[in-house]
Amino acid sequence: MKRGIGYSAVGETFDDFLLIKEATKGTTSNGKPFLTLILRDATGEIEAKLWDATTDDEALFIAEQIIRVTGEINQFRGKNQLKILSVRPAQETDGVKLSDFVEKAPVDREYLTEKLTEAIFEMKNPVIQRIVRAFIKKYQEGLLTYPAASKNHHEYASGLAHHIVSMLQVARELSKLYPQVNKDLLYAGIILHDLGKLRELSGVVTTTYTLEGKLLGHIPIMVEEIGLMARELQIEGEEVLILQHLVLSHHGKAEWGSPTPPLVREAELLHLIDLIDAKMNMLNRALDKVIPGEFTDRLFAMDNRAFYKPLFEEK
Amino acid sequence: MKRGIGYSAVGETFDDFLLIKEATKGTTSNGKPFLTLILRDATGEIEAKLWDATTDDEALFIAEQIIRVTGEINQFRGKNQLKILSVRPAQETDGVKLSDFVEKAPVDREYLTEKLTEAIFEMKNPVIQRIVRAFIKKYQEGLLTYPAASKNHHEYASGLAHHIVSMLQVARELSKLYPQVNKDLLYAGIILHDLGKLRELSGVVTTTYTLEGKLLGHIPIMVEEIGLMARELQIEGEEVLILQHLVLSHHGKAEWGSPTPPLVREAELLHLIDLIDAKMNMLNRALDKVIPGEFTDRLFAMDNRAFYKPLFEEK
Amino acid sequence: MKRGIGYSAVGETFDDFLLIKEATKGTTSNGKPFLTLILRDATGEIEAKLWDATTDDEALFIAEQIIRVTGEINQFRGKNQLKILSVRPAQETDGVKLSDFVEKAPVDREYLTEKLTEAIFEMKNPVIQRIVRAFIKKYQEGLLTYPAASKNHHEYASGLAHHIVSMLQVARELSKLYPQVNKDLLYAGIILHDLGKLRELSGVVTTTYTLEGKLLGHIPIMVEEIGLMARELQIEGEEVLILQHLVLSHHGKAEWGSPTPPLVREAELLHLIDLIDAKMNMLNRALDKVIPGEFTDRLFAMDNRAFYKPLFEEK
Amino acid sequence: MKRGIGYSAVGETFDDFLLIKEATKGTTSNGKPFLTLILRDATGEIEAKLWDATTDDEALFIAEQIIRVTGEINQFRGKNQLKILSVRPAQETDGVKLSDFVEKAPVDREYLTEKLTEAIFEMKNPVIQRIVRAFIKKYQEGLLTYPAASKNHHEYASGLAHHIVSMLQVARELSKLYPQVNKDLLYAGIILHDLGKLRELSGVVTTTYTLEGKLLGHIPIMVEEIGLMARELQIEGEEVLILQHLVLSHHGKAEWGSPTPPLVREAELLHLIDLIDAKMNMLNRALDKVIPGEFTDRLFAMDNRAFYKPLFEEK
Amino acid sequence: MKRGIGYSAVGETFDDFLLIKEATKGTTSNGKPFLTLILRDATGEIEAKLWDATTDDEALFIAEQIIRVTGEINQFRGKNQLKILSVRPAQETDGVKLSDFVEKAPVDREYLTEKLTEAIFEMKNPVIQRIVRAFIKKYQEGLLTYPAASKNHHEYASGLAHHIVSMLQVARELSKLYPQVNKDLLYAGIILHDLGKLRELSGVVTTTYTLEGKLLGHIPIMVEEIGLMARELQIEGEEVLILQHLVLSHHGKAEWGSPTPPLVREAELLHLIDLIDAKMNMLNRALDKVIPGEFTDRLFAMDNRAFYKPLFEEK
Amino acid sequence: MKRGIGYSAVGETFDDFLLIKEATKGTTSNGKPFLTLILRDATGEIEAKLWDATTDDEALFIAEQIIRVTGEINQFRGKNQLKILSVRPAQETDGVKLSDFVEKAPVDREYLTEKLTEAIFEMKNPVIQRIVRAFIKKYQEGLLTYPAASKNHHEYASGLAHHIVSMLQVARELSKLYPQVNKDLLYAGIILHDLGKLRELSGVVTTTYTLEGKLLGHIPIMVEEIGLMARELQIEGEEVLILQHLVLSHHGKAEWGSPTPPLVREAELLHLIDLIDAKMNMLNRALDKVIPGEFTDRLFAMDNRAFYKPLFEEK
Repeated sequence: MKRGIGYSAVGETFDDFLLIKEATKGTTSNGKPFLTLILRDATGEIEAKLWDATTDDEALFIAEQIIRVTGEINQFRGKNQLKILSVRPAQETDGVKLSDFVEKAPVDREYLTEKLTEAIFEMKNPVIQRIVRAFIKKYQEGLLTYPAASKNHHEYASGLAHHIVSMLQVARELSKLYPQVNKDLLYAGIILHDLGKLRELSGVVTTTYTLEGKLLGHIPIMVEEIGLMARELQIEGEEVLILQHLVLSHHGKAEWGSPTPPLVREAELLHLIDLIDAKMNMLNRALDKVIPGEFTDRLFAMDNRAFYKPLFEEK
Repeated sequence: MKRGIGYSAVGETFDDFLLIKEATKGTTSNGKPFLTLILRDATGEIEAKLWDATTDDEALFIAEQIIRVTGEINQFRGKNQLKILSVRPAQETDGVKLSDFVEKAPVDREYLTEKLTEAIFEMKNPVIQRIVRAFIKKYQEGLLTYPAASKNHHEYASGLAHHIVSMLQVARELSKLYPQVNKDLLYAGIILHDLGKLRELSGVVTTTYTLEGKLLGHIPIMVEEIGLMARELQIEGEEVLILQHLVLSHHGKAEWGSPTPPLVREAELLHLIDLIDAKMNMLNRALDKVIPGEFTDRLFAMDNRAFYKPLFEEK
Repeated sequence: MKRGIGYSAVGETFDDFLLIKEATKGTTSNGKPFLTLILRDATGEIEAKLWDATTDDEALFIAEQIIRVTGEINQFRGKNQLKILSVRPAQETDGVKLSDFVEKAPVDREYLTEKLTEAIFEMKNPVIQRIVRAFIKKYQEGLLTYPAASKNHHEYASGLAHHIVSMLQVARELSKLYPQVNKDLLYAGIILHDLGKLRELSGVVTTTYTLEGKLLGHIPIMVEEIGLMARELQIEGEEVLILQHLVLSHHGKAEWGSPTPPLVREAELLHLIDLIDAKMNMLNRALDKVIPGEFTDRLFAMDNRAFYKPLFEEK
Repeated sequence: MKRGIGYSAVGETFDDFLLIKEATKGTTSNGKPFLTLILRDATGEIEAKLWDATTDDEALFIAEQIIRVTGEINQFRGKNQLKILSVRPAQETDGVKLSDFVEKAPVDREYLTEKLTEAIFEMKNPVIQRIVRAFIKKYQEGLLTYPAASKNHHEYASGLAHHIVSMLQVARELSKLYPQVNKDLLYAGIILHDLGKLRELSGVVTTTYTLEGKLLGHIPIMVEEIGLMARELQIEGEEVLILQHLVLSHHGKAEWGSPTPPLVREAELLHLIDLIDAKMNMLNRALDKVIPGEFTDRLFAMDNRAFYKPLFEEK
Repeated sequence: MKRGIGYSAVGETFDDFLLIKEATKGTTSNGKPFLTLILRDATGEIEAKLWDATTDDEALFIAEQIIRVTGEINQFRGKNQLKILSVRPAQETDGVKLSDFVEKAPVDREYLTEKLTEAIFEMKNPVIQRIVRAFIKKYQEGLLTYPAASKNHHEYASGLAHHIVSMLQVARELSKLYPQVNKDLLYAGIILHDLGKLRELSGVVTTTYTLEGKLLGHIPIMVEEIGLMARELQIEGEEVLILQHLVLSHHGKAEWGSPTPPLVREAELLHLIDLIDAKMNMLNRALDKVIPGEFTDRLFAMDNRAFYKPLFEEK
Repeated sequence: MKRGIGYSAVGETFDDFLLIKEATKGTTSNGKPFLTLILRDATGEIEAKLWDATTDDEALFIAEQIIRVTGEINQFRGKNQLKILSVRPAQETDGVKLSDFVEKAPVDREYLTEKLTEAIFEMKNPVIQRIVRAFIKKYQEGLLTYPAASKNHHEYASGLAHHIVSMLQVARELSKLYPQVNKDLLYAGIILHDLGKLRELSGVVTTTYTLEGKLLGHIPIMVEEIGLMARELQIEGEEVLILQHLVLSHHGKAEWGSPTPPLVREAELLHLIDLIDAKMNMLNRALDKVIPGEFTDRLFAMDNRAFYKPLFEEK
């Protein structure tokens, strides 16, 4: 029974399809060319070396190519490595497709669409609702497929929508407990806050930063987008400015990328809900991998802390 | 109709009972003694000068004394001041009592007790439940009357219980959204996290720091209390250590008073819920005082920010 | 001979027109109303108290009103104060106008216009030139009248244009010394970098922050403006992105308000030239006021340093 | 003549007993298992590889096992490595014991006991004396055998007692020079300040952090212990609180693990004496290893500085 | 019986000589001139106002003038103030001299000279000894009269020598406990480390910063002095460089004024001994003024902490 | 055609002279000795391994030896490496000299001398001119040959003079634009500011830190030198102090090595011009190596940023 590369243990053999995520050429100290491949399926990734690589190999085994590999799982410097015994590019007749090799959100597209629609229906302020609706229409495909980040949290297909929908649920409950909160504004802030990532990041499969991602970043990109959209929809009024402020301030501090800190109640709350959902996503996924009585690996985006799972937790 | 000192406007006359919160002796530059009084009722506080104070006055008009004052509301250096026209100490026959002059939580004692009891009933881990129950029994009176802090957030009578109950509600909803969370542990952390303030702060009416509050602080005090309680109840097991860790780490960072950062999922979540509830309390109370289109005063504990109330908010 | 309020010494009498910059009501400790006025002309400003102010006075003596005052220059807590002996509002027949009471750049409008035009003529890249030209047309009036800031440097009428023109001169010379620099890009960055202040600041006379100035700030405002302008001019190409990057990064660091640091040569140079011109403006104006052998006042925006003028400098 | 592994030079052969401190399994890139061993005796430690390790080897060569090794000292990436030629586990008849392979304090147990006793005899405050005596009794064994830390300073057997006794000597002299110092309090603070390490660290031989060490840390552990001990001894009075404060504040700052900074004279002095003794221990041991005219290695716990030994120092 | 101004209590009358430390002119809001005087004797200082000051008064009552005052001790904004009833300048026949009004070290000049001589006699390295001897000769007068600082610690006449002698005693004892320490070097570092203050500070009575004090600071001044002295004495060898390093690094960190941190054992120890003696001086003097059970005022140079004197301390 | 090692590509053969910059001995895991060589010519550097090195090889192939090598360019861990096929030390008859293998400033010695002379001729203050002239005479050789730093900017032969001359040109232009600047002072500051590096750094070819460089640093060294020079030239007056201040403060902040920040106009400007010239040197050299549309490597001394070369730049 196939379990995927993320669950393979040292000493096991492996015989299945994998996607090449990265391929880098190298030369051994005695002058022979080889390829370092990062291979992945939906469960995880592993490094492999292709020794004595020919020029043909270099042209064949490139990023986004699916391959059929047999090999053994070894360990090198504390990390698993796949020792390749045989390898060939996948063919059309193999019936495998790129999307099978990508980690996905634990909920499906229909669920995400439904939850987004639900949130928009709850809105009462027509201006805010119109702007949000227009963005969902404009970015529908990317919104439902992109990851929320290239690493750290929700870094999987549909991660962005998963993050948004999860934040919306937190927002709904907090709005009940703190009834002064303007729910329309908060919902809109949640849906729009990271949409700039659709232009900041290169795509779903091999997620890197685009040029405008590097030179501007998703926050200024999205502030500009809201201004353009308001002009297109011929909307005026403070709602536009406040929505731009929510997006601009959602990282909370200048050092963290928000040149203006939150100065509106819902902006502060948006920042806190973003923190909670990102942290719970990282924590839950890391703790799922350890048994009670153990610590997780150090989590870089949580100040490099390793977290403990108490013995009295269920396994 | 009496509205309380917190709502008096410059130019108005005032004739009612007030509590002396602080009384300080001074001497004018031409050598005459006077008293500076901070006076308060349940709606707010105001400064007043008692000129030409006699030695009798100094003995009579001291902190925690209730007085009957008539006077006018003036302004001095941008702050309101009460110009005293006549003043006398309250007598038994006046029928006023100290607790009438203290700001109170917007919910009553019964409600708070009920909500705490409810949370304990929901707990399934018997060890955690026993410890929490024992603390609620030990500190029942203080827990229901103390403020959560001497200033900044929930700084009113029953503020501590109000903060706890509000956090418990947030915790209940987040536990549903993130089902991996150990609700018993999170509830217990919330109920216990600030109980050390019952020893750190001097009391309900004139809240100052005690000697052990200054030399140890509420966090180490409470870590020790949990250890003592476990010994008294003859409880062993990791629950005790984990509860101590939750209390110890709930300020999140060494610079903020937690020598160990959160290293357990519920410790991280406790820290975040504490942040949310404290911030929403400060924000809602500050925004309640301004009309749409205005900024609040600068809020010291929110990085000195002034918050804006959008025009499209209801007044 | 009239020298202006900025040059009046303690003990002198004063008899001239002044502009009310700020007027605040107060009440003395014995209950009498008064007004605190900040008065100014083109040479500086001074505080004055108007005792026993009537309701009429309060309505009459408000911000932006010009008044005729006679009084004496006293000193109070180390600062000069004008003791008002008589005061009346200016009348039409007095022939004074608001713009006479405002500090101005040491160069005139024609000079500034000419220098800006010169810079645009030097540009060779048609795309960059078109965008800059369009902004100069759009904001011509504000660009030539606004201060560069509400305080610290170039905080006077036409200060923004003065700052830009001065930076352009530095840029021209540095471009000769470092010929790899793209002069078009650098010039464009200089002209556009602070244009967002026309929306961030309220105006020339009493310069405060607008709502969008507070909630967004001039940097995100201008990044959005460049995007909108490019769309209006139907311009595409990397120039637009790079210009947005220059504006976005010109404060140099996230902590200083640039969420992205300079990542293009001309962006780094723009930041440095901005620093030089702002600092030289502050330093030269502060050192002009002291004689050799003395220190200036502490300059807040120069890390609170007081600067020394060596004895061997000419007075 | 045997000199120990810490003094072996590259190119020499080695034939003696060593203790396995750590053993980690690995697999070569061609799939063969090996063991990486960290071996030590009382003079130092060295890495070794055991190639082609069988399953038996993996069970045999584990942490805390003493082995007999012959091999050669090689160098790999700038660090010495032991090339194993033959190896076997030690047998009972070899007459070697674990404690022979551990670095020890340069003074013996009797000396340390005597000096501690001496300090207690000097105390005049009966309450302080009783508490200290009770702790020395409770933790006698650990106190005399534990290291003061897992690395950096006094990281050897009996290092904790060595650190305490050395600090007591400094304290005695400083108390003479600054006679206002309360010597009883300072002595007690010195003896108790790091006792929490007996629960924070796992033991003498392979020193790691325990679970309560990680989740609480030695400072909160010891604050709690003092509270418990006072209750057991039925002691009340400010001495208990002040001792807890000394322990709590001895790292000097929140960022360094003391949520409350020193607020009592002897607390401040305890912090400074702790600094001096830890730094002199690190400096002296590092400088002993270099000749005049050389720099030491970088010392991580001294801000990564390398220290210079002047030419005019005796070798 | 005369006790000095530092011990006067509110309500007492005062009739004695005082030194004017500072005199500043002011004008009341109704235009009348007055003088604000800071008056002192050897026990402390107090503020006084001289109302209706004539031009003659302004010329007479200036800094460093001794006056005879009768008055009453009042309180103004929480600080004592002397209400002047009569005042006249001291005359020659009064037999008072400036040095009577200055706070002095608690030990006399002979003691300080003796202790310095003793330290030099203990030195064995002839080069180090010669340099130190030459500096003591060059700066004898200033060394024995200057304060160690203009405020914070040892800020009294002969404070510098008192600080040095106290540090020498600590150094002697620590050298015994840590015999690896080069005592000659440490002694020399202690004697020289702050000698640059003789050029940085203006003098004993009214201590301000000189121009070279502000533009260079005592550390670079003294590094240069050692270089010049070595050249004058025709001394070469590493001792000169190491002494310069000790002076340069004695503030411990770049942020604290040492561009190079300590990189020699005795440099590190010099920094620590400097810290201890400065802190003990501040702490002991502050704690002497409070009774057991009280906190001191906040000590600015001790991170603004207020220190507690335990109840079990002798008064 | 020979292009130099800096331009060699992977796969090419190499046959030319190179200079050994560093030689380090190593031992392979199977016990065989080898040498790691860093080889360079005027265009760049490369690493090479000399396997099976004999004792003779170790004596022959040392730093500053020129060798004749044939080999192939390989790649190892992302960096180029030279695989040595044959190697021999250069002989006298080869006609190669060390200076051929060192990177040089892009302008020659005559040009640099002329520009320095020109600057001195422009000076009008005779005191400043005399000091600068004396230093140029004293350090003529080093000034014209040393690098400005051991890495980061102007780190090549004559880099110091190149940096100075480039800064002088910027200073000349800025002095015209800000005519209040004292050009003599600014020029002198520029010429002297880094002269201490002639004692801080070991030399032109293999640039390391000297002992006094490590223990004092170039800034305190140069402050002392100016004092000594003034004494030699029997110059007094504020110019000496101000020049020392310019050197002392030119790093701008205590954290960056200037214990006193700039407090004179020309000191501030010196700091800014130093920044500009260093940054433009780093940026221009890094951007010269990439084509439009690419990013440079991360530049460590520019906060680790990678810079982008826009597509519209000429290649």
